[in-house]
Amino acid sequence: MLKEGMLIVLSGPSGSGKDTVLAELFKLDLGIVQSVSMTTRKRRENEVDGIDYLFVDESVFLSAIESEKMLEYAKYGNNYYGTPKAPVDNWLADGKIVVLKIEVQGAGNIRKMYPDAVSIFLTPPSLEVLEKRLRGRGSEDDEDVKRRLDIACNELSRICEYDYVVVNDDLMSAVDDIKTIISAEQLKVSRRNNLLSEVNK
Amino acid sequence: MLKEGMLIVLSGPSGSGKDTVLAELFKLDLGIVQSVSMTTRKRRENEVDGIDYLFVDESVFLSAIESEKMLEYAKYGNNYYGTPKAPVDNWLADGKIVVLKIEVQGAGNIRKMYPDAVSIFLTPPSLEVLEKRLRGRGSEDDEDVKRRLDIACNELSRICEYDYVVVNDDLMSAVDDIKTIISAEQLKVSRRNNLLSEVNK
Repeated sequence: MLKEGMLIVLSGPSGSGKDTVLAELFKLDLGIVQSVSMTTRKRRENEVDGIDYLFVDESVFLSAIESEKMLEYAKYGNNYYGTPKAPVDNWLADGKIVVLKIEVQGAGNIRKMYPDAVSIFLTPPSLEVLEKRLRGRGSEDDEDVKRRLDIACNELSRICEYDYVVVNDDLMSAVDDIKTIISAEQLKVSRRNNLLSEVNK
Repeated sequence: MLKEGMLIVLSGPSGSGKDTVLAELFKLDLGIVQSVSMTTRKRRENEVDGIDYLFVDESVFLSAIESEKMLEYAKYGNNYYGTPKAPVDNWLADGKIVVLKIEVQGAGNIRKMYPDAVSIFLTPPSLEVLEKRLRGRGSEDDEDVKRRLDIACNELSRICEYDYVVVNDDLMSAVDDIKTIISAEQLKVSRRNNLLSEVNK
């Protein structure tokens, strides 16, 4: 039974655990590929260029926008974040499940361009937990944490724009929830090709 | 996190295995309740009145229609099939997951009345398998089998009206698929109440 590729948009406040959840999801070997975002923000010590992000200068980023090579981009704080278009379209044509980790600001554009995209909002169980996680990270100062919490409040108010919400209280439950969403979406009538001819054979 | 009840519409050709799949699903103790359909068709030997169906005379059925006590009904072959309305509405108000086993003909009405209903089409892996199953059942003569196969072909052409399709090749896989669909639907943003206030607490 043929299936088309599936585009998954994963958003959530900074500190909601998107990266940790995705890392566990990839371990499950479900054949998911993840688009690597491009950003102008400073690389954190544990991050690898080309894997966590494509870290580029602002001039490079602006030139990619200019030549329409970006699927979406957003300015978030003082930095640009965005998704190069070509690899995503190639993977989808190839029938792959593509996960885009996208800021809330940019997710709306993706949903417009790919109406079949499955959008998932990952949320911390509470703002207190989010604050603890952000402070525990150690890479942000007090002002950064306060700004990120403000942004998180804003983002939370836009959950209603998403298809699914996954609460990241327990890591493995959150991973299981996303796995469940993917499996159910694969059973959607709208995602099945040649279904009738398969049954009628 | 409060959730509203969920209405699941399960359809599929006669012989697709709706009853067997549902029996296994109920063993899982997911808190699902199943509406008992009312019918004027003859009771099969292994069926129990009030559990498999409410078996009634045509005059009783027509009177229930008249007094608007039916959620939906359809004439299928020479017999009426339908769903009494009151228990379904009570269960949904109570937050329950209610499964309606509904003929394809009647499912459209349910979806109109309950736009949030999750509709699942259970299909045999092929028409050959369906024919084998119908003959194996032993309760239908040749003409019955032929008529049911014709109806099945018709019903299969209406899969596109459903949200999900589950192929009943292996029984436990089909049960798992339905379980997955229910779990994913429970993660839908549109089904979550008070989500924001929970996170903002």
